Amino acid sequence: MYKKLFIPGPTHVTEDALREMATPMIGHRTKEASNLQRNISDKLRKLMYTENEILLSTSSGSGLMEGTVRSCTQKRAAVFSCGNFGNRWFAMAEDNNVPADKFEVEWGLPNTAESVNQVLANGEYDLITVTHNETSSGVMNPVEEIAQVVKKYPEVIFCVATVSSLGGAKIEVDKWGIDICITSSQKCLGLPPGLSLCSISEKALEAAKKVKFRGTYFDLLQIYNCIQKKDYQYPSTPSLSHMFALDYQLDKILQEGLDNRFARHTQMADYVRGWAKDKFALFAQEEFASNTVTCVKNTREISVGSLNKALGERGYMISNGYGKLKEKTFRIAHMAEFGLKDIKELLSNIDDILEL
Amino acid sequence: MYKKLFIPGPTHVTEDALREMATPMIGHRTKEASNLQRNISDKLRKLMYTENEILLSTSSGSGLMEGTVRSCTQKRAAVFSCGNFGNRWFAMAEDNNVPADKFEVEWGLPNTAESVNQVLANGEYDLITVTHNETSSGVMNPVEEIAQVVKKYPEVIFCVATVSSLGGAKIEVDKWGIDICITSSQKCLGLPPGLSLCSISEKALEAAKKVKFRGTYFDLLQIYNCIQKKDYQYPSTPSLSHMFALDYQLDKILQEGLDNRFARHTQMADYVRGWAKDKFALFAQEEFASNTVTCVKNTREISVGSLNKALGERGYMISNGYGKLKEKTFRIAHMAEFGLKDIKELLSNIDDILEL
Repeated sequence: MYKKLFIPGPTHVTEDALREMATPMIGHRTKEASNLQRNISDKLRKLMYTENEILLSTSSGSGLMEGTVRSCTQKRAAVFSCGNFGNRWFAMAEDNNVPADKFEVEWGLPNTAESVNQVLANGEYDLITVTHNETSSGVMNPVEEIAQVVKKYPEVIFCVATVSSLGGAKIEVDKWGIDICITSSQKCLGLPPGLSLCSISEKALEAAKKVKFRGTYFDLLQIYNCIQKKDYQYPSTPSLSHMFALDYQLDKILQEGLDNRFARHTQMADYVRGWAKDKFALFAQEEFASNTVTCVKNTREISVGSLNKALGERGYMISNGYGKLKEKTFRIAHMAEFGLKDIKELLSNIDDILEL
Repeated sequence: MYKKLFIPGPTHVTEDALREMATPMIGHRTKEASNLQRNISDKLRKLMYTENEILLSTSSGSGLMEGTVRSCTQKRAAVFSCGNFGNRWFAMAEDNNVPADKFEVEWGLPNTAESVNQVLANGEYDLITVTHNETSSGVMNPVEEIAQVVKKYPEVIFCVATVSSLGGAKIEVDKWGIDICITSSQKCLGLPPGLSLCSISEKALEAAKKVKFRGTYFDLLQIYNCIQKKDYQYPSTPSLSHMFALDYQLDKILQEGLDNRFARHTQMADYVRGWAKDKFALFAQEEFASNTVTCVKNTREISVGSLNKALGERGYMISNGYGKLKEKTFRIAHMAEFGLKDIKELLSNIDDILEL
């Protein structure tokens, strides 16, 4: 039985978008492929509020996160973390012998503009990474405020993972001065996993030119140079199926209207948070609770595994807590194409199962 | 208009396989995902004639080629090349600061067992890479013979790219002693691009343990450890759509029968080669002409671009020569689900257009 996915990725994909995944193949060295890939980039620029170039990558978002820290760090990277995905970014730096330090806060709390200011003030770092939306803890970091601080350090490359937020919250790449903004297909864009993408600034490209060993597949500079030279064709054969579906889905997103889309996400988030506070408690500090996923503190000590099993029998799926938060929390994603009606349907089923 | 693709990837994907790409999403941390990924690995072991573990990667084949040379070279890699894809493999080593030397033959000729013996005899190398099927020149390297030589050097990790041949030619991984055998979805497996995979031996895994900086996304050892620990679940969200389609397609392949499948490819190859020798000439040395793609020497000095345009109007597509061979050669792929009927249909259209 198909389950409606309220997990923080892969999210529910609508039937029409799934159909696009079944588009017949074309050659990847054709005008048709160039047009497809150029159109996607143009539409993504609107969604990201940027004039910067867009790079597509056939990989999960992790691939581009790794490519970013490896391609653009000359001196040392400051990796800010408020949960699992921030920690992963740090591990990627270590795996690639990129000098880096991790600044992690207690899970449930955000990384603050003050802490970023303190860290950057010593002049040791030329790249910082921030996770905009941390699905493990349900925290949405105050990237707009952090951006104001980073602007005081013009030598620093500002990298933001918006993997689980882009398309569900307004992220103004150019206004905020984000040099590399990364996302992937299977969260708020409402597509199957397998494609990730980022915007990249001139400043980040210039930094990459000074880094000697950037690898190949995730070398942001090689990808950039290839699409400039080959009219948006990629160095190796990309996932055309995802590109067909993304092109279609971006039309739908722009047609909905970006402000409408973000407001719909906020409406769902507000409703889930209200429910969570009423029946349980929020895990994340409330002012920083995410717009796209709510992490619920399991104050009633229910068995999350049993709840999810019972939900599964009714055709729904939520997520248990991440890693060390398993059974101590559970997570409800409100991403992509769902609306308030779907959220109410899910929550009333949970109420019914738990007799709340 | 949809064109029947006779290009060396992406190849034609049948409608039923395309439909599998539109399968609704499941969570990637579920039993269902484990079962899917374990089943794929079991079926691939049959296709590869191996008991080794299989690793899937959401990327093009290039990603795993890079991961291989980076993850498993301790001392120095000997990269054998007879065309563009061999050269790329060498560039990947360079991009990752992996000590390596390239041994390239004139395009159209194969890498020989003798040359491999000569190179390995000096004891400088602990990893060698060979491209089984070079689509740029239409050469299929004598990997079985090369394998006999490599066996004399038990310290050497033997890596073979069968990106454009696995599923269209018999490759006996265990019998030949291939430590890492790489392929991807969009060639002889008859699926859209976006997924690549490899088999990996214990010896290669042991070698990886001794390499310090292997990166993250293409670190073969991290992928291996993750699927052992998490019952075939991958470190980051994989392309489930491709996995659904691959699982389906592998059933079809095994149902056709491997020997039947390889024989069908040989039949198509023989026919195209006969036609090429009759009307033009073969670019590759005939004894090493590929079973999956024929590179035709443009002895009539036709405009390949114009031919492909005319073919396009009739619903077919072939490939121009690769890079420096553009217009000097053209390429006809005979891969995946096509049969002799499709090949005859294509060639009679070429004859008709060129008035041959």
